Amino acid sequence: MWGGRFTARPDEIMQAINVSIDVDKRLWQQDLAGSKAHCVMLAKQGIISSEDSQIILNGLETITAEIEAGTFPFRAEFEDIHMNVEARLRELIGATAGRLHTARSRNDQVATDFRLWVRDQVDLTIQQLYDLQGALLKRAEDYADALMPGFTHLQPAQPVTFGHHLMAYVEMIGRDRTRFIDARARMNENPLGSAALAGSPFPIDRHMTAQALGFDRPTGNSLDGVSDRDFALESLSHAAICAGHLSRLAEEIVIWTTPYFGFIRLSDAFSTGSSIMPQKRNPDAAELVRAKTGRINGALIALTTVMKGLPLAYSKDMQEDKPPVFEAFDALDLAIRAMTGMVLDLQANTEKMAAAAGAGFSTATDLADWLVRNLGIPFRDAHHITGAAVKLAEAQGVDLAQLSLGDLQNLEARITDDVYKVLTPEASCASRQSYGGTAPDQVRIQIQRWKDQRS
Amino acid sequence: MWGGRFTARPDEIMQAINVSIDVDKRLWQQDLAGSKAHCVMLAKQGIISSEDSQIILNGLETITAEIEAGTFPFRAEFEDIHMNVEARLRELIGATAGRLHTARSRNDQVATDFRLWVRDQVDLTIQQLYDLQGALLKRAEDYADALMPGFTHLQPAQPVTFGHHLMAYVEMIGRDRTRFIDARARMNENPLGSAALAGSPFPIDRHMTAQALGFDRPTGNSLDGVSDRDFALESLSHAAICAGHLSRLAEEIVIWTTPYFGFIRLSDAFSTGSSIMPQKRNPDAAELVRAKTGRINGALIALTTVMKGLPLAYSKDMQEDKPPVFEAFDALDLAIRAMTGMVLDLQANTEKMAAAAGAGFSTATDLADWLVRNLGIPFRDAHHITGAAVKLAEAQGVDLAQLSLGDLQNLEARITDDVYKVLTPEASCASRQSYGGTAPDQVRIQIQRWKDQRS
Amino acid sequence: MWGGRFTARPDEIMQAINVSIDVDKRLWQQDLAGSKAHCVMLAKQGIISSEDSQIILNGLETITAEIEAGTFPFRAEFEDIHMNVEARLRELIGATAGRLHTARSRNDQVATDFRLWVRDQVDLTIQQLYDLQGALLKRAEDYADALMPGFTHLQPAQPVTFGHHLMAYVEMIGRDRTRFIDARARMNENPLGSAALAGSPFPIDRHMTAQALGFDRPTGNSLDGVSDRDFALESLSHAAICAGHLSRLAEEIVIWTTPYFGFIRLSDAFSTGSSIMPQKRNPDAAELVRAKTGRINGALIALTTVMKGLPLAYSKDMQEDKPPVFEAFDALDLAIRAMTGMVLDLQANTEKMAAAAGAGFSTATDLADWLVRNLGIPFRDAHHITGAAVKLAEAQGVDLAQLSLGDLQNLEARITDDVYKVLTPEASCASRQSYGGTAPDQVRIQIQRWKDQRS
Amino acid sequence: MWGGRFTARPDEIMQAINVSIDVDKRLWQQDLAGSKAHCVMLAKQGIISSEDSQIILNGLETITAEIEAGTFPFRAEFEDIHMNVEARLRELIGATAGRLHTARSRNDQVATDFRLWVRDQVDLTIQQLYDLQGALLKRAEDYADALMPGFTHLQPAQPVTFGHHLMAYVEMIGRDRTRFIDARARMNENPLGSAALAGSPFPIDRHMTAQALGFDRPTGNSLDGVSDRDFALESLSHAAICAGHLSRLAEEIVIWTTPYFGFIRLSDAFSTGSSIMPQKRNPDAAELVRAKTGRINGALIALTTVMKGLPLAYSKDMQEDKPPVFEAFDALDLAIRAMTGMVLDLQANTEKMAAAAGAGFSTATDLADWLVRNLGIPFRDAHHITGAAVKLAEAQGVDLAQLSLGDLQNLEARITDDVYKVLTPEASCASRQSYGGTAPDQVRIQIQRWKDQRS
Repeated sequence: MWGGRFTARPDEIMQAINVSIDVDKRLWQQDLAGSKAHCVMLAKQGIISSEDSQIILNGLETITAEIEAGTFPFRAEFEDIHMNVEARLRELIGATAGRLHTARSRNDQVATDFRLWVRDQVDLTIQQLYDLQGALLKRAEDYADALMPGFTHLQPAQPVTFGHHLMAYVEMIGRDRTRFIDARARMNENPLGSAALAGSPFPIDRHMTAQALGFDRPTGNSLDGVSDRDFALESLSHAAICAGHLSRLAEEIVIWTTPYFGFIRLSDAFSTGSSIMPQKRNPDAAELVRAKTGRINGALIALTTVMKGLPLAYSKDMQEDKPPVFEAFDALDLAIRAMTGMVLDLQANTEKMAAAAGAGFSTATDLADWLVRNLGIPFRDAHHITGAAVKLAEAQGVDLAQLSLGDLQNLEARITDDVYKVLTPEASCASRQSYGGTAPDQVRIQIQRWKDQRS
Repeated sequence: MWGGRFTARPDEIMQAINVSIDVDKRLWQQDLAGSKAHCVMLAKQGIISSEDSQIILNGLETITAEIEAGTFPFRAEFEDIHMNVEARLRELIGATAGRLHTARSRNDQVATDFRLWVRDQVDLTIQQLYDLQGALLKRAEDYADALMPGFTHLQPAQPVTFGHHLMAYVEMIGRDRTRFIDARARMNENPLGSAALAGSPFPIDRHMTAQALGFDRPTGNSLDGVSDRDFALESLSHAAICAGHLSRLAEEIVIWTTPYFGFIRLSDAFSTGSSIMPQKRNPDAAELVRAKTGRINGALIALTTVMKGLPLAYSKDMQEDKPPVFEAFDALDLAIRAMTGMVLDLQANTEKMAAAAGAGFSTATDLADWLVRNLGIPFRDAHHITGAAVKLAEAQGVDLAQLSLGDLQNLEARITDDVYKVLTPEASCASRQSYGGTAPDQVRIQIQRWKDQRS
Repeated sequence: MWGGRFTARPDEIMQAINVSIDVDKRLWQQDLAGSKAHCVMLAKQGIISSEDSQIILNGLETITAEIEAGTFPFRAEFEDIHMNVEARLRELIGATAGRLHTARSRNDQVATDFRLWVRDQVDLTIQQLYDLQGALLKRAEDYADALMPGFTHLQPAQPVTFGHHLMAYVEMIGRDRTRFIDARARMNENPLGSAALAGSPFPIDRHMTAQALGFDRPTGNSLDGVSDRDFALESLSHAAICAGHLSRLAEEIVIWTTPYFGFIRLSDAFSTGSSIMPQKRNPDAAELVRAKTGRINGALIALTTVMKGLPLAYSKDMQEDKPPVFEAFDALDLAIRAMTGMVLDLQANTEKMAAAAGAGFSTATDLADWLVRNLGIPFRDAHHITGAAVKLAEAQGVDLAQLSLGDLQNLEARITDDVYKVLTPEASCASRQSYGGTAPDQVRIQIQRWKDQRS
Repeated sequence: MWGGRFTARPDEIMQAINVSIDVDKRLWQQDLAGSKAHCVMLAKQGIISSEDSQIILNGLETITAEIEAGTFPFRAEFEDIHMNVEARLRELIGATAGRLHTARSRNDQVATDFRLWVRDQVDLTIQQLYDLQGALLKRAEDYADALMPGFTHLQPAQPVTFGHHLMAYVEMIGRDRTRFIDARARMNENPLGSAALAGSPFPIDRHMTAQALGFDRPTGNSLDGVSDRDFALESLSHAAICAGHLSRLAEEIVIWTTPYFGFIRLSDAFSTGSSIMPQKRNPDAAELVRAKTGRINGALIALTTVMKGLPLAYSKDMQEDKPPVFEAFDALDLAIRAMTGMVLDLQANTEKMAAAAGAGFSTATDLADWLVRNLGIPFRDAHHITGAAVKLAEAQGVDLAQLSLGDLQNLEARITDDVYKVLTPEASCASRQSYGGTAPDQVRIQIQRWKDQRS
């Protein structure tokens, strides 16, 4: 394989660590697309004859058919997808196959294949995030008025609506989408024609292959063209942030489906049972979505570690770029789709949520705000009075709205019974009319804003 | 501090783990800017009186002056920067201070402060990357014709120019800049007014505070406003990728300054000596730049781990968001500036580099390409003939250009002495005229392209 | 500082990135201990005179006193703790100070200082884990009989006791302790005397300094002595695993303290309130313990990244070893102590836990086991019958024990009313007598086993 | 599968994210071993009949034979290895198969299988590290006297021997081995019998299954038994530290095989060529070993992230424990073996190394030490004089040993020509007789120490 210069065979462990075909055969479509574009360009530029070009293209078609039919002989002895295709091409069309490798190298070839694969996967992710956002919007509309406790520290804090809560994820997923869109635009440059590292002495047309492969332009520096893996790193970063968002909602689903919360129920389609405890309804999909964060964070660290301190241009270390990227996108694909399924599937127990929204002194802030607004008390002092009211209600075993006016007036003489109007969770929610607030009107404004933006 | 409801004091270890003023006092400018914008808006909306507003603004000015003068009493008993400022304000202006906290919460306050800090630091980073890119462009011009070996696997592969090599980093840093620019645009939303999590019942104007603080718009969901840390995560991700680039150049500087390579020399201003080995000239700055990758990757993992699986809205875990971000930006700041300094400082030993560029059969590919172009031999066969030529030259202890024509013709009879024209490193470089290739003309085209883009 | 060879001053950014005194001054005690041991040994071996030795030791005492009094002048111009001490010593005792650096280098000096610091911190951690384990054992005894639901997937699965649950953490913390004990034994070798990297030509006695510093033996290879940071990496690894355990219990505390669970209550000493929601009782300490996992994982990745691919022996990259280690141990120290405090502080709501233990068909497995044991039905079939029983009970809105015998016999005719004996949570727990099972007797056996092991 | 309680089928994406058979079928041997031990124990304890036991054991033998023959029907519909085996057993032996699941659960089953797998792999790793250490010792003996430059900052610092350098890795690998040995001892507890989480009401004998499976004892707490993954985390941590060591030697091999260093040569068996540059001899295996660090660090972060904050006992997140562990051990296996191969294969260019050892003023420290020892000059002053000597030699373009005595006496009048004895690299090395120093005698002492320890 190394020309005529090596006399001895590689050691067995050398072969074992070196071979990558089991991993990179996943790039076969991209590899063939790149070869076709390269071949057509070579002929157009007169670097190979149009007859040879046609023979090569026919051979590549045969290989495509073989792979699709499952009859293509993937062989470890040819190390990687590029050499497997090239060796097979030579078997099919003879020495002419050798002309395809004119003015290119495995270095720019793998850079091109891998970038195409990542770009395709990013496109898929952008679509899947759109779908997930759509699911969230739909359910936010369903539950725009449904009361639930808003939490801090997992303690009920103030009433919100379930629609409002779901809209928080619409924002997150919206940011995730634009991150992938930005990354896609940045990565969409053609490394093909960088050759081994220095560019080519043949009169190649890199803009032509760029266009054929859907790239916006050729990369501007051949060393960078073969040594850059930013497109993978940036995609992994965005995947990690997105997985973090999914893990938060997944955690909430796990918590909400416990009987003690009982806020939502997943249907049989998204629950599993137990092999020993027949009563169980487990939110396995949510737990697995949550766990995928680990896989994706691990993939990100794997590749940043591999790339750290690598001199230009190509080092073999970079062969280790593909497993983490494949794994991370597989994990993200499953996680987004599973989450979309759960979002569409879940049924809220709106009575239980509403009851919880009103419990636990959740309108204490509303009392404090009433004191500020109506009596002109500085907020910090209103806060102190409210604390005393909560303490009293707790001692009496009642809710704030159940304290007598007398009790309240003992704390602050100017309180009137107007105060009871703000002490229900409905009133609390409805009052939060600030932009982006939980008042159902505001939630609907945001739903509409997102719908307009998406259409 | 918790209103009137708590009877017992916190445990000592509780206080120790809870207090954050040593870390978050770094946000004091952002905290005061946010308070001023909030105060002005409250008055404008009639939520507080203009008299109170003026008293508060005066108090905040006094605090600014105290902090700048180093006389402000930062106190652990007040836990964080927000409470320290609020407590001091109360000492300065009395109960009126309590009105400033109307219609806001520490949750939206810290979200605003931290976002403003990260945005400022991103702006600084964008400028520093511009400067580093400028330094690289300058040196690329200096060395646009200077031959050096291009490497794969740290083995010399094909001649390139040092200018071309430096331009690879111009591309990387260019991508880094656009990543930070994209992140900046995405994060530039105002969380102030999200209040604790549900928005506010007061008639606040979030667009007004957004404008005052340089934000493009208010955040669209109050739960997301207080629980989002994407802006920090995305910045850390981009910092990690950027640090990876810097680590690659740093590694090259370390290798190039060994006496065996001897490609470049750093002046005394960027070298250190040894306390025991007086002859040493150590590239400490390059090593430290390389090491900063660890710090920044660690920070990224720290924050992704913290955020994993956190239910909405605010959890105290999020207090741990600031140390990794502060550390990572400090590391990145030092690393970019140190690298800029080294790039401007380094002197290439162009003779040694050129000699290396011509050694090690570096024009073997040029021989293979000559066979393809002039004799129509398929590339793979040309590759095989060239391998045999290298083996022969190695056996004779000579370079390719020193093989006799007879020797070459023994390998392929049709070779003529025209072949010797392509066997020098100058000819090799000059021939690589493909877009983005190492031919000095092409390097200068790319230099110009970047200059135009930057102006 | 670099002998007489450098002519120009370092660049400002070079100094900024190079200086480490703000970080490594934390090693002052270790640095002085190492210097004293070295000085005594040099005199004993006749390498310096005993008069010089006494002068140096007196100077080091003065420095100790200055640092303790806060009057020692830490100066950035002397870069690190070693040079600061050395420079100060020269100011105090003149040129004799220079003799202290005989037969050593900053490379072995920092390796020794840092190893001593980590060893001390590991010793502290071992003690703190002992205390935490003691706290867990105490509370496990308190609650050895207290019923609670055992969870899988955060769904109630089978009844256990709270004591049994706490004992799971006794096992984890027990493993953590032995990990640190193993690491301590492994790291306890003396690098002092490795000098710059090659050892020393002076007749030093490394066993003597080893003994003086509490090391078991000198390191066996001088290159390894200065380049090894395993002791730090292994400690970080163990810290990360330990932090993971703490994060699990912290998560449970967060969940158990929500009003919907209400399983436990933390006193005011371990709760915080809200600046806007006076009713809140937030488990901040638990959340912060959970978050420390991020810091420690980040530190681990930081140092593994720094050390990746560093050639021997010392590279300046290794200066970045200390910040992550300091941060991680600070985080672990707070986390263990805060957890110990919470474990001792928490009060279980045993009625609520017991009620939950009996709800949710938690004894379904006991029914299945009864069918196997009493009717000889294969487990899988018993599982199927039990599933049907649960479904029926759910439809009737009752618990398993409330199904009529007729209903049960409709599912399997041979069921007798003996079955009701196993359908209470008390019976379920008591029956699980396998080694390590949740039967209170078994829990007490394990408590005693740990007590014996610890004494 | 979930007993009789579920009415609807799982969603397609639910199935896709849930199924694990493609990953966990790798545990088939451990799963069958666990089932056999469990079956024999059930019969011994009278929980199942000996007839049923024999039928089950025969069925398990058939399954073993089927898997070994490649005829076993692995089916995604049965989700994981445990259910696949159980389903097949039922097909083979009928309803009796259902008795095997008495007194166990998939929770303790997978905990046992996975622990057995990790223990086996740790045993293999311990052996492979022994072999690598043996290879290093052999080559250290070969090169015990071979001079080479010792490096700091990749700059030549002081002469050492190549044997001494290799012995540094013997120390590292020695620590790696003891770490795995410690981990093995710690993990060797039997979780089988923990059942779902609470232990079992059947009279099982966990000590008996422990002995049958080679465990030292049963785990002491059933909740911990099913929720503990420390054994995997600790193994990954040790793998990460070990991979870091390998990455350092790999980096050195990459650097040493560049023509500019030319210190060592790998044979054809451990070199690869280039598809475009026929002259290349690339150290691919070393680069791949270096890159495996990324994979293993990534796996460590993946699992720590998954386990963070998981409530007891079993959560489905833990299904994500196996991929990172499998990947990391596969990577470590390849990396250790490839490194062992390279260590045995490499040939040092001892002349080139020795020449380098003497260049670059590498004996400057020896000059300084001579001044201290012979003239009683404090080390710091000797250092200053030596710095001046290096500067002079550099100016004259000569080495230290080539400076005239007059030149040296101009710097310090008392210098005699005795000084030239210490200025050769041989003399420098031979003089470093401190314990663990580079003097060949000392290197041989350490080689012998390790040999004794290993035998």
